[in-house]
Amino acid sequence: MRKLKLVLLVGDGMGDRPVPSLGNKTPLEVASTPNLDEMARRGRVGLMDVIAPGVPPGSDTAHLALFGLDPFEWYEGRGPFEALGVGAELDQGDVALRGNFATVKEENGKLIVVDRRAGRKVPEAEELVKTLNEKLNKVKDVEVRFYHATEHRLAVVLHGPGLSDEVSDTDPHEVGKPVALSKPLKDTPEAKKTAEILNEITLKSYEILKDHPANLERVKRGLPPANIVLLRGAGMMRKRLPKLQELFGIRAAAVGATALVLGVAKAVGMDIYVPKGATGGIDTDYRAKAREAVKLLEDYDMVFVHLKGTDAASHDGLVEEKVRMVEALDYIAGYIMDYYDGEAVFAVTPDHATPLTVKEHTGDPVPVLLYAPTQIPDEVGEYNERSAIKGSLRIRGKDLIRLMVNYANRAKKFGA
Amino acid sequence: MRKLKLVLLVGDGMGDRPVPSLGNKTPLEVASTPNLDEMARRGRVGLMDVIAPGVPPGSDTAHLALFGLDPFEWYEGRGPFEALGVGAELDQGDVALRGNFATVKEENGKLIVVDRRAGRKVPEAEELVKTLNEKLNKVKDVEVRFYHATEHRLAVVLHGPGLSDEVSDTDPHEVGKPVALSKPLKDTPEAKKTAEILNEITLKSYEILKDHPANLERVKRGLPPANIVLLRGAGMMRKRLPKLQELFGIRAAAVGATALVLGVAKAVGMDIYVPKGATGGIDTDYRAKAREAVKLLEDYDMVFVHLKGTDAASHDGLVEEKVRMVEALDYIAGYIMDYYDGEAVFAVTPDHATPLTVKEHTGDPVPVLLYAPTQIPDEVGEYNERSAIKGSLRIRGKDLIRLMVNYANRAKKFGA
Repeated sequence: MRKLKLVLLVGDGMGDRPVPSLGNKTPLEVASTPNLDEMARRGRVGLMDVIAPGVPPGSDTAHLALFGLDPFEWYEGRGPFEALGVGAELDQGDVALRGNFATVKEENGKLIVVDRRAGRKVPEAEELVKTLNEKLNKVKDVEVRFYHATEHRLAVVLHGPGLSDEVSDTDPHEVGKPVALSKPLKDTPEAKKTAEILNEITLKSYEILKDHPANLERVKRGLPPANIVLLRGAGMMRKRLPKLQELFGIRAAAVGATALVLGVAKAVGMDIYVPKGATGGIDTDYRAKAREAVKLLEDYDMVFVHLKGTDAASHDGLVEEKVRMVEALDYIAGYIMDYYDGEAVFAVTPDHATPLTVKEHTGDPVPVLLYAPTQIPDEVGEYNERSAIKGSLRIRGKDLIRLMVNYANRAKKFGA
Repeated sequence: MRKLKLVLLVGDGMGDRPVPSLGNKTPLEVASTPNLDEMARRGRVGLMDVIAPGVPPGSDTAHLALFGLDPFEWYEGRGPFEALGVGAELDQGDVALRGNFATVKEENGKLIVVDRRAGRKVPEAEELVKTLNEKLNKVKDVEVRFYHATEHRLAVVLHGPGLSDEVSDTDPHEVGKPVALSKPLKDTPEAKKTAEILNEITLKSYEILKDHPANLERVKRGLPPANIVLLRGAGMMRKRLPKLQELFGIRAAAVGATALVLGVAKAVGMDIYVPKGATGGIDTDYRAKAREAVKLLEDYDMVFVHLKGTDAASHDGLVEEKVRMVEALDYIAGYIMDYYDGEAVFAVTPDHATPLTVKEHTGDPVPVLLYAPTQIPDEVGEYNERSAIKGSLRIRGKDLIRLMVNYANRAKKFGA
């Protein structure tokens, strides 16, 4: 039997509740989605508890589930995923942190935070990271690596023996306060050692960055210098996650622009592609994502496309923009269908609901769509929160990829 | 409240996908099944994930689930079930193997395999097994027992202290090769001892069988002598499975002809009945199974009837034969209904789908039917994959027997 490709399309935070300004309809109900509805007509629709009923997923736990791993078993915090998502390599036992380029001034022998984000726009970040990786690549017996994410954001990875993630931040999380001293949160040699390393990194980063030519230039132009790296959110990669290749025998690629989500994808063995113009915002070039997906499907068994804009619009309460981003996902679906209809199993789903009336993730069941030429369709011909109630699927997030693999004729038998 | 009987009818691999030559209907949709549809009309229909969504079950794991045991918790390989299914008794710690009567010749002091199945037809098998059980019933301090399955097939059980199933086969799995030497697959005294025992069994079986009168007679008639036992697929019964009597207080009987499935039934405490004419193939005497079931229901609380023909037809891609085997299951259902309608809880289900277009087990949800006089019916009046989508049941395989026990007024309260 012929094996089919797998296409997983995720509209981040796409699920919603009735929106008063939309006549108590949802963005999925209001948006024009001819391609999603066509897939619904020929496939199955239903409700999915991404984690468990009523549990609001984070984007990281949600995607772990969508990739087939039970987040209750595998999730260990966002740190390592963020780092993976911006290109870091992580071994078991490594500690990952989020870092900010920030602006500090010396005052009475103390370093006081003036701007936690160094003005947010730091086009010199790549250059500064390069300098840090040259001059601050080792503290004690531990290797230190810096990775630029976006704007003022960094990932910092510690690689070496005897580390811990049970340490407090050097980021004081408040302007006007002195740079914080990282402290061990448990009385272990590992936590003590790691806290010392974080303090040394933060202080040395100031020594290295304060007179860096790029910062002297920024000051000359009246911009806040990016003269220190503040650290927060230590997380350790304790377990090696199983890879999709091992679980299902599939080679998968991820298309998106959101570090956290791409990091989860990388952690389960996907190759990461960020098309030019993909931003992780509502200004993203979603057409570029569609083209990238079709291109990748030539070589990969599975492509996962992540659209963050639906969630970004939701957190900001932007109704029209959310509707527009739903239509962007419909465009992506239609574009890929033009090439792979009949050759692939398609799944479309939010990773969670972010209702416009709430502006936060909620634990509502999400509408899920599964379309495969090998599957008997149900009688629901629209894809939205209301039609999904009448649909036939009733699954958990971690079941979705297994159903996709099954209808792609790729599942392995359990037993004889 | 009166206790009802339980009748579980399993069409092996009966679930299917749209079949082009049936106008994209399934065998269950096309077959004439007045009895199943009548039960659907008066009962409930729905979808069942026998193991978990998208996971293709083996027949052994599937039946563990159908008998109420989570296969992820209890499954340890097919070997012990196969042996139980052909009449072996197994204690915890025993090792079971599959054996073949084969034909070897001596060449330069080596035993070279000429026919791995000794011509397949070995009507003398019972006689040869009797001789083996007399002359080869002990190796070292371990008891050895031989059981004839069908044709050239045997089960061999080792009973004694310090055994292991981490040993390689003496079956070289290829004609023209010398008989293989079993080797320990782990460096343990148990594996070493067991490998030595397997080698001794295989070599001694040749000494015992080569001049056996039945073989001299075969050679005279130009048939390949069944002059050695080749061993493979060692499996250990590590856990004692809970019995249906202990779990649900029911005495159950199994009617079928497939060793692997009957072995699972026996492992959970069912008594096994193979009616004359039951073959495990599409030529089985299904009427004999129906009669046997009705007879057994006089004495037992539950009868399980297994029909393998649906699966056999599926693996061979035989569309018309599969339709006919579905109708055979309908006959069995109707025959038992004639005697026990109103007195029993009936469940009808595949153990998994084996779509004719795939010819292998798949992880599709299967259509399940539950009919009991004590249960409020839903509004679906047909039993097939498409009607089941609209049905009310959404369960896992291991839930089914618990629902049956419940509607039979036999379930025990959990809690006070």
